[in-house]
Amino acid sequence: MYPLEFQDLKDSFKELPGVGDKSAERYVYAINELDKDKVEKMADSLIKFKNNIRTCSVCGCLSSQDLCSVCSSKTRDKSIICVVEDSKSAFAFESTGKYNGLYHVLGGLISPIDEINPEDINILSLISKRITDEVKEVILALNSSVEGDMTSLYIQKKLENKNVKVSRLAYGLPVNADIEYLDPLTIIRAIEDRKYLS
Amino acid sequence: MYPLEFQDLKDSFKELPGVGDKSAERYVYAINELDKDKVEKMADSLIKFKNNIRTCSVCGCLSSQDLCSVCSSKTRDKSIICVVEDSKSAFAFESTGKYNGLYHVLGGLISPIDEINPEDINILSLISKRITDEVKEVILALNSSVEGDMTSLYIQKKLENKNVKVSRLAYGLPVNADIEYLDPLTIIRAIEDRKYLS
Repeated sequence: MYPLEFQDLKDSFKELPGVGDKSAERYVYAINELDKDKVEKMADSLIKFKNNIRTCSVCGCLSSQDLCSVCSSKTRDKSIICVVEDSKSAFAFESTGKYNGLYHVLGGLISPIDEINPEDINILSLISKRITDEVKEVILALNSSVEGDMTSLYIQKKLENKNVKVSRLAYGLPVNADIEYLDPLTIIRAIEDRKYLS
Repeated sequence: MYPLEFQDLKDSFKELPGVGDKSAERYVYAINELDKDKVEKMADSLIKFKNNIRTCSVCGCLSSQDLCSVCSSKTRDKSIICVVEDSKSAFAFESTGKYNGLYHVLGGLISPIDEINPEDINILSLISKRITDEVKEVILALNSSVEGDMTSLYIQKKLENKNVKVSRLAYGLPVNADIEYLDPLTIIRAIEDRKYLS
């Protein structure tokens, strides 16, 4: 009995992650209540996003230009490159407002079990193109999973004979975390990476 | 640092109910991964829905035509009208596949506290236009809230001098419900509406 347009829109919403029948219906009813210009804006945003968003030709981050706003900025510190798994991570760093260096987005992690080899992700351009004399440090900012550690190690090895410092993010307690609820691995890492105060 | 198109699409998704910053971002990343034709279909569905969906001129249900598929059907039983609060309820009845009568969508419930009076919802056309000689029964299928009961009572009174049976949905145990977890009111209603088996 649903009108065709209702069913079509519901099916489209179900393409979104975590959206099942019930949520999709709720969204369709919401669209029914929404002002026409807002719905048109949503449709327009979808098309513009899909037409204009690409990956930055230097760092691989999502961007509406050939060069992203970080790579094209004149005020960023070009001596530091932060290596991240995906654009999400880069945006998370940006949201802190405290990191002023550049990024390099791998677009994945090495994972032999999934047949993802170093050449399948954006590593080569980091090693061969981006480590210029200007670059002093590469920060490896990958998740501490098996794949993340493997990828970090691979990049670290590849950078050994380059004149560049390699660092990784600190492991330890998340701010505001309650120690009694932390997993043992995090506690071990926090002890290993402890800072001497005196 | 988010590209403008990213932020615009995220803002649009946040118009949907229950979608906050995090979900909206997740949806944008999903759109980034989705095939272009699926995204274009979503945009197209939004526009088509907004342009074509209206309320049926007879029953008030969401429809893509002036007359909805139920009101224009030749096989429906035109002697029964089921009165519901909104199109969602009508679609819920349709999903059972067991109800073959017509609907009347009120588009709200009487609620003095919210200053919603009988004339603010779609009651008048029910009383004055739809109760023809053909109609034998009106089923009141409103939620059992204060507003629902008030609205049911109002319609019941208005139909008193018409030659039509008025019924309401049965109250009782939901199928598969565990009695120990039911609220007292439902248990009371289930006792009051009990069916004699012998």
